[in-house]
Amino acid sequence: MTDFNNWFYGGKIMVTCSMERMEDKIRTFSRFGDTGHGGITRFSLSPEAVMARNEIKRRMEKLGLTVKTDDVANMYCTLPGTDPDVGAIMAGSHCDSVRQGGNYDGILGVMTAMEAVETIVTEKIPHKHPVTVVVWTNEEGARFEPAMMCSGIICGKFDKAKMLATEAKDIPGYTFGQALEESGFKGSEANRIDPKKTTGLLELHIEQGPVLENAKKDIGVVEGVCGMINYEFTFKGQADHAGTFPMKLRKDALFAAAKALLYLHTEFDKLDSKLVYTTGKISCHPNIHTIIPDEVKFTLDARHQDPEVLKQCLDIIKKMPKEIERCEVSYEEAWSRKTVKYYPEYIDDVEKAAKELGYSSMRMYSGPGHDAQYLCEIIPTTMIFVPSIGGHSHCELEFTPVENCWKGANVLLHTILEIDKTK
Amino acid sequence: MTDFNNWFYGGKIMVTCSMERMEDKIRTFSRFGDTGHGGITRFSLSPEAVMARNEIKRRMEKLGLTVKTDDVANMYCTLPGTDPDVGAIMAGSHCDSVRQGGNYDGILGVMTAMEAVETIVTEKIPHKHPVTVVVWTNEEGARFEPAMMCSGIICGKFDKAKMLATEAKDIPGYTFGQALEESGFKGSEANRIDPKKTTGLLELHIEQGPVLENAKKDIGVVEGVCGMINYEFTFKGQADHAGTFPMKLRKDALFAAAKALLYLHTEFDKLDSKLVYTTGKISCHPNIHTIIPDEVKFTLDARHQDPEVLKQCLDIIKKMPKEIERCEVSYEEAWSRKTVKYYPEYIDDVEKAAKELGYSSMRMYSGPGHDAQYLCEIIPTTMIFVPSIGGHSHCELEFTPVENCWKGANVLLHTILEIDKTK
Repeated sequence: MTDFNNWFYGGKIMVTCSMERMEDKIRTFSRFGDTGHGGITRFSLSPEAVMARNEIKRRMEKLGLTVKTDDVANMYCTLPGTDPDVGAIMAGSHCDSVRQGGNYDGILGVMTAMEAVETIVTEKIPHKHPVTVVVWTNEEGARFEPAMMCSGIICGKFDKAKMLATEAKDIPGYTFGQALEESGFKGSEANRIDPKKTTGLLELHIEQGPVLENAKKDIGVVEGVCGMINYEFTFKGQADHAGTFPMKLRKDALFAAAKALLYLHTEFDKLDSKLVYTTGKISCHPNIHTIIPDEVKFTLDARHQDPEVLKQCLDIIKKMPKEIERCEVSYEEAWSRKTVKYYPEYIDDVEKAAKELGYSSMRMYSGPGHDAQYLCEIIPTTMIFVPSIGGHSHCELEFTPVENCWKGANVLLHTILEIDKTK
Repeated sequence: MTDFNNWFYGGKIMVTCSMERMEDKIRTFSRFGDTGHGGITRFSLSPEAVMARNEIKRRMEKLGLTVKTDDVANMYCTLPGTDPDVGAIMAGSHCDSVRQGGNYDGILGVMTAMEAVETIVTEKIPHKHPVTVVVWTNEEGARFEPAMMCSGIICGKFDKAKMLATEAKDIPGYTFGQALEESGFKGSEANRIDPKKTTGLLELHIEQGPVLENAKKDIGVVEGVCGMINYEFTFKGQADHAGTFPMKLRKDALFAAAKALLYLHTEFDKLDSKLVYTTGKISCHPNIHTIIPDEVKFTLDARHQDPEVLKQCLDIIKKMPKEIERCEVSYEEAWSRKTVKYYPEYIDDVEKAAKELGYSSMRMYSGPGHDAQYLCEIIPTTMIFVPSIGGHSHCELEFTPVENCWKGANVLLHTILEIDKTK
C-alpha cells in the first residue's frame, strides 16, 4: 500500500494527511443524524449536532488541543504554537445540515481541519502560530433562520438578542436561545474570535456544483463569493369557478406566473453564461383544482460574481409587464448580497499548495454563501473547494470521494504551513 | 308600491312569489355561518348548517308541510296535493358552502323552493301533486369529500359505509358518520326519495359564471351538465443548490411545469371557444428558494358539453412531450364525468314559464356539477339558472340581486304548476 503520509512529488518530500484517518472521520461523522438513506439531518444544536460536537471535542482534546466556545456556541479548538506573540491560523466550517442533507457540506471543512491538526501533531511539524479548528454554529439556518447566523453575530451582521429570540421552524415557541442553553456548548463572549489575535482563516468546503468535476480539477481556489439578488414576485388575479368562467375573461394568477417565469428564463439566458438563477419556491391561492388561482407568488434567486451582470438582471425584472393575462404583477427585493472578495495573499497560498502537491486546480467564485464571507470582513480569509460528484448538494446524493477529501486536507495543511512560514 | 304577488303580463294574470319574503329569506340564511366579510362558511352538518336546517324545518312546518329526513340527512319537506295517486314534484338544492363561500350557491335553490311553496300555500293555489322542498346533504364536499355525496349515495354512485367513514379535512379522525349522528338530522332509509312516487325534480341554482349577465338574460334554461376531465401532471427533476449548478445542466421541475402549462394553454385555446379549463392547484418540492425544484405537480380540469371536444383535449395531453427541460413528464387521470342531459319536457316547461312571465332566457349547459346530475338518472330532472354578478362564485363576492332571485322563484313556481297541470 502506498504510504500517503509522506508523498513524493517533483523531487520534494511533502508531508501529507492520512487517507485512512480521513475516511474514518467521514464514516464517524456520517452517523450523527444518519437518515438511513445516505445522508443526514443534523439541525444546529439538535441532539445529533451535539453528538457531533462532543466527538470533535473528544478528538481534539485527545490531541492536546484546548476547546473553548463563545456565547453563541462557536467552537475554537486550539493547538499552541511556539511563538507567543502571533495570532492563530484558523480553519474549519460548520457541522449542521439541512433536512436530508449530505455527509460533506460543512462538516468536511471541520474534518479536514481536524485532520490537518492531527497531522501536525502526529508528524510533530514545527509551527510558530497557534492553529485553531473552528466550528461555526447554525450555518444552514435550516431550523433557526437566518443562515450563517453565528458567524454573522460575531461579525456584527445580526443583532444577538433578536437571533436568540428566533423561533424554530419545526417547534413553535422554541427559540434559538433555548436550544443554545440546552446544548451545553454555550460559552463566554470573551472567547469570541479576536481579529487582533488572528492571523487568518481558511474554510474548506465542497463545491456544491459540478464545475470542478466537469473541468476535471482536484481543487477550487476560491476567489470570493458571488453577489446575489433575491426577489419575490406576486400575481393577483380573480378566484372564480373552474367550470363556468369563460377563458377570455379569466384572471388566472398561475397562468400569469407561468408566463412571467418563462419571460425571466428567456431574458436571463441572454446574459453571461456564468449567471445562475433559480425560481425555487411557489405558492398558489386557494390552490384548489376547481378554482381559478387568485394569488400566486414565486421567488427568484440570481447570482453572479460581476455586479454588472446582476444589474442587467434587475433591468430585466424592472421591464416585466405590470399586467400579464389581466393579472396585476408586482415584485419586491427579499435581500441581496454584494460580491465578496477573499484575501489575495492566501488565495495565492492555496493555489501554490495545490501546485506543489501536484494537484490540478482552478480559480473560481462560490455561488452559495459561507461563514467565511462574514469572517473575511474582520480577518484575512479564503476558501478551498473540493469537487461535488454530479454537483449535488443539500441532498442525500451529495458525495465527494475520500481521495478528493484527502487532497483537500493536504492543501489546507500546506496552506496553514505556508502562512505559518510567511506571517 | 307594485304588488309583485299578482303580476300582469301579456293580458294574463300570473301569480308570483313575494319579493319581500324572498329578501327576508336571503337575509336570514346569510346569517348562518356569516364570515363578516359578505359571505359564509357553512360546512355540511356543521353547527351553522344545523342552524340553517332548523330554520328551514321551522318555516316549512309553520306552513303545514311534513318534514322528514333519510338515513344521510337529506331533508324532504312535503306539502300534500289533492290527488293521492300521483308522485311528488320536488324542488330544492343544498345548504352547505365552501370555506368563505357566498350567500347564494345552493341555498338559493332551497330558498326559492320554500318561497314557491309559501306562495302556493298563501295564495291557496290548487295542485294535484304533493310538492316537496328538498335539501341534499354535503353537496360541496368542502369538509368531507367527495362533492355531491348524499345525492350520490341515494343514487347508487357512492358506497354508504365508505362515505360514513370519510374523515373531515379539518379534524383528523372525525368522520362523516359522526357528524351525521351529532347533527340530529339523521332519519330513516325508508324516507329516501322513491323514484316511483316522484314526478320530477327541479333545482334552481346560481349560474356561477358570467354568461347570463353578459348576455343580459334573466333565466338560464339548463339543458345538462358539461362533461369533464381531470388530470394531474407530474414533473420530475433534480434538486441541486441554486447558487452553483450551471443552468445548462439543470433539471428544474418548476420550469418544466411552466412550459407544460403554456403548452396546454396554447393548444387548448385552438379548440372550441366554449371549452373551459383550469390549472388550479400546484405543488413544488422541496419549495425552498435556494434549491432547484425536483418535483412539481399541477392539476388540469377541462369541461365541455360535447364529448368530442374533450377527446381533443385528451389528444393534446397525450401529445405532451415525455421530457421537458430534461425533466420526466407524466400524467394520470384523476377522474372524468360524461355530459349529463336533463329531461327534455321539463327543460321546455322552464323555458315556457320564463317566456310567459316575460323574462328573457337562454338555453345553456352547466359547467359545475350539481346534485341534479345524479338525481336525473333516477327521476325526470332539470335545472334553472339565475345570473351571478361578475360570474363570481365559491367566494364572498358571489352575488345575485334579489329581483333575479325572485324571478327565478317565479319560474320555479310556474314550472311546478305546469308539471302539476300536465302530468
